[in-house]
Amino acid sequence: MTTKKEAADAVLAAKVRLGLTWTDLAEALGTPLAWTTAALLGQHPVPKEQAERAAEILELPADAVTALRLQPTRGALESPVPTDPTIYRFYEVLQVYGPTIKELIHEQFGDGIMSAINFRLDVRRVPDPAGDRVVVTLDGKFLPYQW
Amino acid sequence: MTTKKEAADAVLAAKVRLGLTWTDLAEALGTPLAWTTAALLGQHPVPKEQAERAAEILELPADAVTALRLQPTRGALESPVPTDPTIYRFYEVLQVYGPTIKELIHEQFGDGIMSAINFRLDVRRVPDPAGDRVVVTLDGKFLPYQW
Amino acid sequence: MTTKKEAADAVLAAKVRLGLTWTDLAEALGTPLAWTTAALLGQHPVPKEQAERAAEILELPADAVTALRLQPTRGALESPVPTDPTIYRFYEVLQVYGPTIKELIHEQFGDGIMSAINFRLDVRRVPDPAGDRVVVTLDGKFLPYQW
Amino acid sequence: MTTKKEAADAVLAAKVRLGLTWTDLAEALGTPLAWTTAALLGQHPVPKEQAERAAEILELPADAVTALRLQPTRGALESPVPTDPTIYRFYEVLQVYGPTIKELIHEQFGDGIMSAINFRLDVRRVPDPAGDRVVVTLDGKFLPYQW
Amino acid sequence: MTTKKEAADAVLAAKVRLGLTWTDLAEALGTPLAWTTAALLGQHPVPKEQAERAAEILELPADAVTALRLQPTRGALESPVPTDPTIYRFYEVLQVYGPTIKELIHEQFGDGIMSAINFRLDVRRVPDPAGDRVVVTLDGKFLPYQW
Amino acid sequence: MTTKKEAADAVLAAKVRLGLTWTDLAEALGTPLAWTTAALLGQHPVPKEQAERAAEILELPADAVTALRLQPTRGALESPVPTDPTIYRFYEVLQVYGPTIKELIHEQFGDGIMSAINFRLDVRRVPDPAGDRVVVTLDGKFLPYQW
Amino acid sequence: MTTKKEAADAVLAAKVRLGLTWTDLAEALGTPLAWTTAALLGQHPVPKEQAERAAEILELPADAVTALRLQPTRGALESPVPTDPTIYRFYEVLQVYGPTIKELIHEQFGDGIMSAINFRLDVRRVPDPAGDRVVVTLDGKFLPYQW
Amino acid sequence: MTTKKEAADAVLAAKVRLGLTWTDLAEALGTPLAWTTAALLGQHPVPKEQAERAAEILELPADAVTALRLQPTRGALESPVPTDPTIYRFYEVLQVYGPTIKELIHEQFGDGIMSAINFRLDVRRVPDPAGDRVVVTLDGKFLPYQW
Amino acid sequence: MTTKKEAADAVLAAKVRLGLTWTDLAEALGTPLAWTTAALLGQHPVPKEQAERAAEILELPADAVTALRLQPTRGALESPVPTDPTIYRFYEVLQVYGPTIKELIHEQFGDGIMSAINFRLDVRRVPDPAGDRVVVTLDGKFLPYQW
Amino acid sequence: MTTKKEAADAVLAAKVRLGLTWTDLAEALGTPLAWTTAALLGQHPVPKEQAERAAEILELPADAVTALRLQPTRGALESPVPTDPTIYRFYEVLQVYGPTIKELIHEQFGDGIMSAINFRLDVRRVPDPAGDRVVVTLDGKFLPYQW
Repeated sequence: MTTKKEAADAVLAAKVRLGLTWTDLAEALGTPLAWTTAALLGQHPVPKEQAERAAEILELPADAVTALRLQPTRGALESPVPTDPTIYRFYEVLQVYGPTIKELIHEQFGDGIMSAINFRLDVRRVPDPAGDRVVVTLDGKFLPYQW
Repeated sequence: MTTKKEAADAVLAAKVRLGLTWTDLAEALGTPLAWTTAALLGQHPVPKEQAERAAEILELPADAVTALRLQPTRGALESPVPTDPTIYRFYEVLQVYGPTIKELIHEQFGDGIMSAINFRLDVRRVPDPAGDRVVVTLDGKFLPYQW
Repeated sequence: MTTKKEAADAVLAAKVRLGLTWTDLAEALGTPLAWTTAALLGQHPVPKEQAERAAEILELPADAVTALRLQPTRGALESPVPTDPTIYRFYEVLQVYGPTIKELIHEQFGDGIMSAINFRLDVRRVPDPAGDRVVVTLDGKFLPYQW
Repeated sequence: MTTKKEAADAVLAAKVRLGLTWTDLAEALGTPLAWTTAALLGQHPVPKEQAERAAEILELPADAVTALRLQPTRGALESPVPTDPTIYRFYEVLQVYGPTIKELIHEQFGDGIMSAINFRLDVRRVPDPAGDRVVVTLDGKFLPYQW
Repeated sequence: MTTKKEAADAVLAAKVRLGLTWTDLAEALGTPLAWTTAALLGQHPVPKEQAERAAEILELPADAVTALRLQPTRGALESPVPTDPTIYRFYEVLQVYGPTIKELIHEQFGDGIMSAINFRLDVRRVPDPAGDRVVVTLDGKFLPYQW
Repeated sequence: MTTKKEAADAVLAAKVRLGLTWTDLAEALGTPLAWTTAALLGQHPVPKEQAERAAEILELPADAVTALRLQPTRGALESPVPTDPTIYRFYEVLQVYGPTIKELIHEQFGDGIMSAINFRLDVRRVPDPAGDRVVVTLDGKFLPYQW
Repeated sequence: MTTKKEAADAVLAAKVRLGLTWTDLAEALGTPLAWTTAALLGQHPVPKEQAERAAEILELPADAVTALRLQPTRGALESPVPTDPTIYRFYEVLQVYGPTIKELIHEQFGDGIMSAINFRLDVRRVPDPAGDRVVVTLDGKFLPYQW
Repeated sequence: MTTKKEAADAVLAAKVRLGLTWTDLAEALGTPLAWTTAALLGQHPVPKEQAERAAEILELPADAVTALRLQPTRGALESPVPTDPTIYRFYEVLQVYGPTIKELIHEQFGDGIMSAINFRLDVRRVPDPAGDRVVVTLDGKFLPYQW
Repeated sequence: MTTKKEAADAVLAAKVRLGLTWTDLAEALGTPLAWTTAALLGQHPVPKEQAERAAEILELPADAVTALRLQPTRGALESPVPTDPTIYRFYEVLQVYGPTIKELIHEQFGDGIMSAINFRLDVRRVPDPAGDRVVVTLDGKFLPYQW
Repeated sequence: MTTKKEAADAVLAAKVRLGLTWTDLAEALGTPLAWTTAALLGQHPVPKEQAERAAEILELPADAVTALRLQPTRGALESPVPTDPTIYRFYEVLQVYGPTIKELIHEQFGDGIMSAINFRLDVRRVPDPAGDRVVVTLDGKFLPYQW
C-alpha cells in the first residue's frame, strides 16, 4: 500500500525524470499553483479526477491515486525545528518577528488570529537591481476571539 | 540590571498604562512600524538616540536604555513550538506549506533561500465583505547557493 | 504480520476505494459511531465477530482480523504535540482552557478527575446561520480522589 | 512589575483566603463563567472595568490591574504533555480519540477544522445513579479549508 | 506569596531542623502516612484545619497555610525522566515491566486500567535474612473501558 | 533476522490466534507468571530450553528462538512518557507520589534505593464490593548508599 | 525508489569496495572537494552530467542518478545534538565559543550574520611538530541586517 | 553571590555604557582577542590578576572577580538548537556540512577528531568586492583514535 | 531559605576566595575525597557534624548547614546531555562504549548490572611520558537479575 | 546493502547460535577485548583482514565485510538517556558524580579534559566476599585547555 509520503516522493522523482514543473502540473490539473504543490506533496486531499490526471501525467503506479485522494494527517516537517535552510529561514522569521506580527495583528484587528485554514499563499519573484527578492504573501481571514 | 526581556515587558505594561500604540511609538522614533515593534520587544539593538526617546515616552527606568541598546541574542519563542494561537498559526503554515514554499522558491529561483536578514515584513488589514483579511508580506532577498 | 497501524491504514484506503463511511461501518457492525471509528483506527480491541465482519466489508487481508482483535497499546499521536490542524485545535483548547476546565471541575465536584475510561464522546454538526458549528461532547464519570 | 502568571497566582490565593468561587466572580464581573475563569488565569485580556472590579473584590495590588489587562501570550501548560491528572485526562482523550474526532469532523463537514477562536466551552455536572458525570462541551464554528 | 513548592521546601527544612518524622506529622494530623507525606509535599490540597496544625508544628510562616490549602497542579518530577536514583528505579520498573503489568491487568480484568485516583499506596520494610526488602503496594480500583 | 520486538509481536499475535493466556504459557514453561510475560515480551533473555518450548507452543518461526535467547537491551516504552492509559497510570503514580515513596523509603531505611534488579512483581485481583481492585506489589531488596 | 540517504549509503559502500577517495571523485567530476563530498552525501542537488558520471564510477544502480539529482531537504544530523565524536567537537565549539564568534562578528561588521549559503569551506592538514593540526575554514559573505 | 552568567551580563552592559570594545579589553588584559571574549562571557576561568583588571576597567562589583575566576561549567547555548541567527548559521553549517567535514578529516588523517581543547579560533574580515566576507578559522590538533 | 544548589555554589565560591582544595576539605571532615566532593556539591546528605564543620571552614551562612544535611533529590546535570566538555567526554564514552561495557559485564557475570549505589569512584593522575593520564575507576557491586 | 547496525545484530545472533564469546572473537582477531567488542558492535572501523576473519568465524553474509569496514557514525544509545538498566547505571553515575569527577580532574590537572579518543577501557570482575565487584577503568590522556 502506498502512503501519502511515498506518493509525494514518487511525484518528486517523476518531475525530475520527466522534466516537469509545478506550473505544468497546476495547469494540467486546473488548480492554483501553491495549492497544487501542497496537495501533491501530501498536505491536501486531491479530488478523484485530479488524482487520476496527476497519476497519468506523472506515470505513477495505480494505488498512488488512492494515496493522493486520502484525507491527510497534515504536518510536513520532519522535526519540530526544520533543518532545511530554505524552510528554516521562515522558522527564523517566527523566532525573530513572531511577537511583532502578533502585536500588529492585535493593534489593527483586536484580539484574534489570522486563519491558516481560510488562507492562501503566494510566492513571487520580484526583480530588484540589488538582487531579486522572494516575496511570500500569507493571506488569511481574521478571526476574532468570540465566545 | 535590566535584561532586554524585562525592558520589553516594561514597554508592554507602559503601552497599556499610557494608552499608546506601536504606531505612536514608530512615529515618535521615526522608524518603520514593524522594525520598531521588533526592536522594542528586544529583537534588534536600538540606537542610543531612539532608546533614550523611547524610554522618555514610555517612562522607563534609566538602565532600560542600556538594555534596549544591547545587541540581542535573538529568538522570541518560549518553546520550539509556539503555544500562543496567534503565533502558532504561522508555525502551522510552515508545517502545512513549508515544503511547498521551498519547492516554489526552487522552481522560480533555483537552489537557494529567501534571506531573513536582508528582509522586511508588513502586516496589513485588507477589507473583505466575507470578513477582513490579515495579509502578512515576507519580503527577503534571494540568496543562491554559491560556492 | 500485520500491525494495528497497518490494519488502520488498510481500513482508510479501503474506505476511499469502496466509497464507504464510518456511519456505514458502524451500522454494519452494530456498534456506536465514535467507538467504531476509534476501534478500526486501532485504539480499541475489536471483538472477533466484528473484526471478521469489518474485514469482509472492507476486503482486508486475513491477518488483519488478528490485528484488529489485538489489545492495543493506545496512543494515536505521532508526536507529543499534534501537527495536524484539525487535531491541533483540541490541543490548543487544552493549552488555553486546560486550567479553566480543571478549576470548574474542582468547583463543581471537588478534588478529582473526569474519567477517560468510563467515557463516551460525540461529534455533532449544529446548524447556525453564522456558520454551522462542530460540537464535541466529552462525557466521563467523575472520579473523586479517594484514599 | 506583576506578570500575568503572578496575577493568576494571586487570584487563586485570594479565592482560598476569601472563600470566593469562580461563579461569584463571574457574577460580579457580569461575564460568562468559563471565560471569566480563563481570563483571570491569564489566558484572555481583561477589559479595564472588569480588571479593576476583580482587583477590588480579590484585594489584589494595584499593578495587577495592568497585568490582567495585558494581551496574553497564551499557553497554560507547563510542559507539552500536562502532568496534572485532571488536565491529563483530556490529553489522553486526544491520544486515544484525536484521529476519531478528526475522521468524524471530515465525514460530517468535509475538509476543515473546529475553530478554537470562535469557540465556547461549558463544564457541567450531570447526575447519574452510577456516579455523576462531567460533561464538557466544546463548541466551535466549522472552518472549511478554503483557498 | 508562598508557592506550594516553597511550602514543601519549608516543610523539609523544618523536619531536619526540628528532628521530626513523617510518622510524627501523620499522627499529629490524624491522616494516613503516605497521604500526609504527599499532601505536605504539595500533591494534595490540605484541609484548613490540618494545614494550620502542620504550620504550627513545623513553625511555618502564616501564608504557608494558604499554600498548603490550594488545589495543586499535580506533577512532582522535575523532568519527564526522573534523575534521582531512588525515584528512577520505579521509572525503570515501568520501562522493563510496564507492558507486563498491562498484559496481566488485561488477562485478569479485561480491557481497562488501575485507577490512580481511587488509589492508595503503602511502603513497608519487610525483614529478609538476605537483606531487608522494600515492598511498595499500589492498590487502585479497576476501571473497565465502558462506553 | 527476527528482532526481539518482532518475536514479541509474534507471541502476541499467536496468543490471540491460538486462544492462549500468559498463565498457560507460564505453566508450560514452568516459570513465574510475571517473569514469563516480561521475558516473552523481550525484556529478559529466555534460556534455550524455554525458548524452544515457547516457540513450539506458539508456532513461532525457527529464528524466533534465537531472538528470545538474546540478551535484551531493555526498555519497553515507545516514548519517555507512556501514552497507553493502562501503563500511563503508573507513570502518573510516579508524578504524584514519587517523592512520597522516596521520603518513606528514606525514613524507614535511611539513604538508599529499592533494587529493580533483585526484584519481583505481582499483579493481583482483589474483590471489593465497591469495585474489584488491581493490587500491584513491587518487592525489591533495599540497597543502602555504601562507599 | 532510491532515496538520497540510500544513494549516499551506496556511495560510501562503493568507496570502500573500490578503494576510491573523495579526492578521486572530485577530480573525476571536476568539482571542488568539499562540495563534491557534501553533494554525494545528499546535501546538494547534483547536476545531471555529474550524477551520471558518479553513478558510472561508483557502479551505482540506475535510479541512484535520479536520487542524486533531486533537490535535497537538507539536514544531515540524526539528532539535534550530534553523537559522533568527530562531528560533536564542532558542536562543542558552538557551545563554548558560539557567543564569542557572534560578538566578534558584531564588533568587526556590525549587526548581521555570516552567510551559510554564499559560503565555502575547506579542511586542511597543517603539519605541526607538536602534532599535525586540522584547520577548518568557514568562509561566508557578511550579510548586514537591512530593512 | 554573582554567577558567571550575571558577571557576563554585567560585562556586556558595561561595554555598551563605557563604549569599550573586546579589542580594548584584550589589549588591557594582554590576552588573545577570542580567548578574552570567551573568558569574559564565562566560558574560561580568568586568572586572578586579569579578573581584577577586568573588574576595574569595567567597573564591576567586587564579587564579580570571584565569579570570573571560578572554573566554568561550559555550554553557552540556551537550547540545544541555537535560535540567534548569527549563531544558528554555524549550526546550519554542521547540519549541511558536518558529515562532509568528518569524511575529509578521515580521508586526510585517518580515524580521529579535531581537538576542541587544544584549539584556537579566529574571526577575520576579508574585503571582497562582491561583499566582505566573514572568515572563521577553527584550528585544533588532530587526535587519532588510539587504544 | 538556602537550597542545596545555592549551598553548593557558596562552597565553590568560598573555595576560590579562601584558596582551599577538595583534598583540604576531605581531610578536615575525615571523609573520602570523592564522597566529600559529591556531598558538598549537594549529591549526598551530609551528617550534622560534618555539615557544621564544613560551614565553619568555608564561612558559610547558618542555614547552609540545614541545606547540606537535607536528603538530596539527586541529579547534577543541567540537561539530559551534558554540555560541559570535561563531563561530556564521559557521556561520549557511554555513547561509544556503553553497549561494549554491557556485553562484557554480561559475559563475565551473566545477566545483571554494576550497582551505582554500593559504589565508589576514584580519579587518579597517572604519569605517562606521552602525556599524563586521567584514570577514573568505577567500582560497584555486581547485582544479578534475581526474581 | 547491509548497514553497520544490521551487521552488529548479525554478530550478536551468530554469537548465540554458535556459542562464541567476545573473548573467543578477540583472540581470533588478535585485537584487545573491549576494542573488539566495540568494533563488531559498529563503533570502530574494522580493518579489512579482521573484518574478513570475523565474517568467516561468524558465518556472516559477504557484504557484512564492507559494513564492518565502513567508517562509523558513532553513537550507540537509542535515546539521549539510555533505558537499559545495565547501561543506565553509568548514566546515573554521571548524573550523581559528573561534577565531582570534573572537580577532581581540575584539582589534579588544572583546566582540561580526559580524552575519550586517546582512551582505553577495561571491565574486570574483582572477587569480594560481600559480592563480586564490577570494576570499570576509564583511562584517557589528559588534554589541557591550550590556546
